[in-house]
Order: sequence, then C-alpha cells, then structure tokens
Amino acid sequence: MEFTTRTSFEAALDTFLTAIVPIEETEVTPIREARGRVVAHQIIAQRDEPNYRRAAMDGYAVVADDTLGASEHSPIVLRVANSVRRGVASRVHTGSKIPDRADSVVMVEDTERLGDAVEVRAHVHPFENVGLKGEDIGHGDVVVEPGHQLRPADIGLLASLEVRDVTVYRRPDVAIIPTGEELVEKGPSEGQVVETNGLITALLVEQWGAHYRYRSIVTDARELIEAALLRDTDADLILTTGGTSVGIRDLVPEAVRKLGSLLVHGIAISPAKPTALGLVENTPVACLPGFPVACLVASYAFVKPAIYRLSNVEREFERKATGTLTGKITSKPGSRTYARVAIQNERVEPIMVSGSGILSSMAKADGFVIIPDNVEGYEKGQKVEVVLFD
Amino acid sequence: MEFTTRTSFEAALDTFLTAIVPIEETEVTPIREARGRVVAHQIIAQRDEPNYRRAAMDGYAVVADDTLGASEHSPIVLRVANSVRRGVASRVHTGSKIPDRADSVVMVEDTERLGDAVEVRAHVHPFENVGLKGEDIGHGDVVVEPGHQLRPADIGLLASLEVRDVTVYRRPDVAIIPTGEELVEKGPSEGQVVETNGLITALLVEQWGAHYRYRSIVTDARELIEAALLRDTDADLILTTGGTSVGIRDLVPEAVRKLGSLLVHGIAISPAKPTALGLVENTPVACLPGFPVACLVASYAFVKPAIYRLSNVEREFERKATGTLTGKITSKPGSRTYARVAIQNERVEPIMVSGSGILSSMAKADGFVIIPDNVEGYEKGQKVEVVLFD
Repeated sequence: MEFTTRTSFEAALDTFLTAIVPIEETEVTPIREARGRVVAHQIIAQRDEPNYRRAAMDGYAVVADDTLGASEHSPIVLRVANSVRRGVASRVHTGSKIPDRADSVVMVEDTERLGDAVEVRAHVHPFENVGLKGEDIGHGDVVVEPGHQLRPADIGLLASLEVRDVTVYRRPDVAIIPTGEELVEKGPSEGQVVETNGLITALLVEQWGAHYRYRSIVTDARELIEAALLRDTDADLILTTGGTSVGIRDLVPEAVRKLGSLLVHGIAISPAKPTALGLVENTPVACLPGFPVACLVASYAFVKPAIYRLSNVEREFERKATGTLTGKITSKPGSRTYARVAIQNERVEPIMVSGSGILSSMAKADGFVIIPDNVEGYEKGQKVEVVLFD
Repeated sequence: MEFTTRTSFEAALDTFLTAIVPIEETEVTPIREARGRVVAHQIIAQRDEPNYRRAAMDGYAVVADDTLGASEHSPIVLRVANSVRRGVASRVHTGSKIPDRADSVVMVEDTERLGDAVEVRAHVHPFENVGLKGEDIGHGDVVVEPGHQLRPADIGLLASLEVRDVTVYRRPDVAIIPTGEELVEKGPSEGQVVETNGLITALLVEQWGAHYRYRSIVTDARELIEAALLRDTDADLILTTGGTSVGIRDLVPEAVRKLGSLLVHGIAISPAKPTALGLVENTPVACLPGFPVACLVASYAFVKPAIYRLSNVEREFERKATGTLTGKITSKPGSRTYARVAIQNERVEPIMVSGSGILSSMAKADGFVIIPDNVEGYEKGQKVEVVLFD
C-alpha cells in the first residue's frame, strides 16, 4: 500500500505550474490601494520627472564660469539676486528650481554670505549639483512592467507621475475544502479534532494575495467529496486538506482522477509525500495531506507558487534568515525534506518532534531548513539558510 | 553649516527606542482576524490536544505483546474487530482514536488482511505508532507568550484548542506630516513636485502593522510646522518628511527642539544623515529627510523598529536574500551605508545613481545591501546579504 512511484519535487511542481493558466482578467484600482497588486499593463511616464532643473544641494545657483579659480584662499564675490546672470548668484535649496541662466550650484558649505553678496570659495563645473529636467524619469520612459507586484516605493513613483489608478490582475479565488470524518468546526468530543488545516491554509492563501472560500468540512464519502469539488470549479484553484494517504480513506485523489485528471500523487518531499495534484474541469486542484505539518509544507511547496503563477507575479524571493545549527538535522533519503527550526540570535535550533502531526511544533518554529533530495542532512555547527514562515 | 556631530546609527536607534513606550492598551479580536496581531497575554491550553490517544499511522491497533516474534517469515494472525483485547486487532487510520485496550499500532504495510483476520508481519513495542492524549499540547501548557505576532499556524493552534478570541495590543497610530514648500498633492507646475515621501511612508507604516494618518502638506513655515506637530501629539508616533537638512529651511528639527526635545540630529547613516529624532510632549517624532531614497532608508532604519517597539513585537527577522555582487559598492566612510540593489538569479546588481533623490532607482531596487560603518565597501564577486524591501 506504499506509493509505488514518487515524483520528484521539481517535476511535480513543474507539472502543476504548467497546468495552471495565469489569470487574464484585470481591474482598475486607485494607486493608494494597490500595494501588493500585480500590474497588468506597462506604465509609461506621461511627463518628465522632475519637470524642471533642480538643485541637488543647498547653496547658490551660479554660472559655472564665474567660479573659475575660486578657492578657500582666493574667494570670488558674486551679487545675490533672484535671477542669475554672469556675476550674479541666487540662493537655492535642495530640490528647488534653478534660475534659468544658472548652470551649476555651489554648495552652501563653500560660501559665505556677505549682505547682498556671497563669497564663493570653490569652483564648480557646468551641471555640477544640478538635477536635469527628466533626470529621474523621462517622458515616454517605461516605469513599471507587467507582472510587477507594487510596493510602496513603486506607488510613490506612480504618484509623482500623477498616475492615479492602475490596471492590475484580479486576485485569484481559492476554494478550500477540508475533508475528514474526525473533523469538527468546534466542540470536539473524544476522537474528534477541530478543523485547522483548512483555516491555516486559508490565512496563508490570503497572505499570498488571493481571496479564499473556506468551505464546510466534508466527511469521507466519495459522493460528497465529488460534489464539493464540482461546486468550486469556478474558482481559480481548489485546495483540499486530508484524505490523501494511500489507504481506504484515500478518496480525494480518486475523486480528482474520476472527475478530471490526477497529474501527480506521491511526491518525494518530506513530510508531505501524500500530496496529490490534478485538474477538475480545468481547475487546478492540490490535495494537501491531513497531517498539519505536511499540510503546511505542501502549502509552501505547491500552493504558494501556484498562487503566484495565477497572479502573474513575475518573480518572488524566498525570504530567508541565516544562522548556525545548534543540532544535527537529518533528511528523509531521496526526499526534499523540510525541517522545522526556531531561530534565536542567529542560532538555528531544530525542533525535535516525533511525528508530523504536531501542531504545536509549527507554532514554535520560525521557518524551515530545506534539505535537497541529494543531501543527507546538515551537521551541528553548519551555517544554514532558513526559509521564514509568512 | 555641516552637522557638527553625527551620532552613530546604533546610538541613535538606541536613544530613540529608549524614548518610546510600548503600547499598553489591548483589544479583543476573533482569531481569524488576528493574523499579524501581537498577543498581549499568555495563552494557556484549557484542555489536552489531542483529547484522545490517536494512531500515528494507518494500520491495526493491537496489544503489543501479541506481536512478540512476528516477522515477515513468521507472521502472527489476529482476529479483527472494533474493540481490541489480547488476540484481537482493530483497523485504525492515521489520526483516529485507538480502542481502549490497544497500546500500539502495526503499520498497514506490515500486515495482510485475511477476511475477518489480519496477518501481522512485524512486532511492535507498547506505544509504538501511538500519539498519546495531550501529546501535542497538555492542559495547562503555555501555547503563546505575550509579544508573539500571530501567524497562520499559531491561529490554527489556537483554533484546535477552541480559543475563539485573543487579546492583542492595539495597533500603533502613526501621524505622517509631509513638509516642503515645493510639494503639491497633484498638478505640479514648474518647480513643484508631487508629494510622495509621506505617501510611501504611510504605505510602509501600514505594512508594518500600524494605522496611519496621512496629513496635508505643511509648507516651510515655523508656526505651521509647530501647529501640525502639536495637533498629532495624541498619536503614538509622528513622522515628518522633508525640512531636515542643515539650512535655512531646517525648521522641523528646530520645532521639535522648541516644543519638546531633539534627541538626535545628524546620524552616521548614508543617505539619511539629516534624520532627526526627538519627542514632542512625550510623543516620539522622527523627522525623515526630504530626499526620497534617504526618506526610505530612514524609514527602514528607525521607523520600522519604532513601530515594532510600540507594537510590543518581541522579535522580528530582517528578511534577506543572498547573492553575488555584479559590481563594486562603496560606502560613505564612517557611515552605515544603504546601497540599493536589484537581484536577478542570485546576482546582486548595484543600482548606479547620481544622487539620493532618485525615485526611479527605488522602483528598480529589490532591497538594500547594508555596509557597516567600519567596512569600506564590497567588491564585485563578493557574496552579500540583501535586506529585501517590504
């Protein structure tokens, strides 16, 4: 009753992502509400930024030629006025407009004000300390490419160009169906447990930028599981939790196979080996294991990339911390292994637990150390990267 | 007119954080809405989880003594029923309740079903493949400590223990006051720029878990700046942008000094040297520089830790990526230097820009490489850590 074949992590992920079609529908949103949204169309600057020549320093705008030979020991005196011409300087502040005929700015530190004149103690070259019109962004420049996920600084850039609304891809809609006859929503009696895998997955899905439908628990009955899957084929992604082990309750992957196609079942990833991936009526389905830790691992390994693909996110960094292992961590030979660890002052502490069904260990952990399938494990004292939990 | 003293980054941050009193007010929120919130009181499990002995594997619950000597070549046959006693096994599934008198589970792989009997081909020890009652969490265990910022897995843990609401600290309330006579909210004419520093800071503040008040632009006039500061002393933190350079428009730090105390002005951090930190009527104030990049750097360096301190967050990891520099980056000698970089396939590319006022460079960047004040810079080919933008 073992899985007869186990697909490698890379092949499983590739198969799943290939089956997922990124969302094409877009919507228009005000830029202030667009943080985290994914831009759908190239955005082109409709004007220069800045729209004037600006001082890059506090000081005096001058005609550079007037400062030839000026130095601390041989200052040159210029008259101060609001407009500039040969022999006349004008006080400017960082970012402010430079008078028309000025071509450079002498830093205030290199001057001394003498009533309506100023002593200049350094020479400047033309364009020195001057920001040109369009220096930051030129009219016609591409400022944001499609697939870019907007961060605060991008929104600031758009605001500076007077872009008020932005066309972004619709967020993915993810249906989450917890399964398992032992599950209850509340008030477990002996032998029952409160549903948590679906809840955790829902909150992660939301954090990864998608909307979720957190469905009621479906018990282990073939026809109910099939009905639940068919009800949500209008979602962009269906996630089930539980019922993926090879055993008499292995109903969910079988339902996927019957209603659509089961692409992968049994993956060389520990502790999420029973994960199954498939399609029901062209809607991608990930069947996540019922063990809480395995469910979490499968969410990071398959659901997060799936949501990013649906969302058209061009690229995403795994956010990491580094530190030194305080104890050995071993891997499941031939499997990509996710070891839970806690981090304290750059010390990475493996969280020792007997099984993968231990919810409390996830709350103690700060992230995973991922051991590739061709590595046996990591020794105490080794420097490792930790993929931090979202 | 240079800053006569420059405080080190560490001393400046320490001074500022010492002046900040963490928020004491709490509120109660349903756990499903508590992602990212900071727990105010210790949470103690009011029952065992699981509340029953469960199977850790699919298989047969047995009395371990019955399997003594069982092996592939010398199987032992047990009768199968719903309850267990000597000579009788019961089919169980991972996570399901183990019948009362059973003390262990034989994995299904080590059995073969023969009608209403089962052939057992391996021996098990007492408690083997059995999860004990309270194995995950025992009644009375501390499950979450104050200061913990709730992640999806924590919320799952609380749900499993039937905790429905959680007492969390109130979110900080941050007032953001953009200053500068050249700023406009929209429709800049020549010599004017659209306000973006305050907007970017507001969106970052929100991302860091605080509420923001994004105030109207205040022009460079002493009495208006003072009035704006005084209006927001009921906030937990006031941020101003612009008006911090040493120059005739250096009004904001002076207003802080007049109305309260200016703790630090001029910090050995590049490009955010003009940052000022102080208190107005016991409300912490950070005066952020007007250069967009300097404003962003000061936000990461001082505002983010200030918000975490206000929020009672016990610890926070800087989220990083690592890669190899494609070019040299130099630092400002004696200053902690933040170099903007882009990352592509673990190649870390310095973003070359002439000044710190370049908004477009922030949109191209993925994060900062931080060069400590005692390091001169990093060479091309060196492996570096990148602090990723939020």
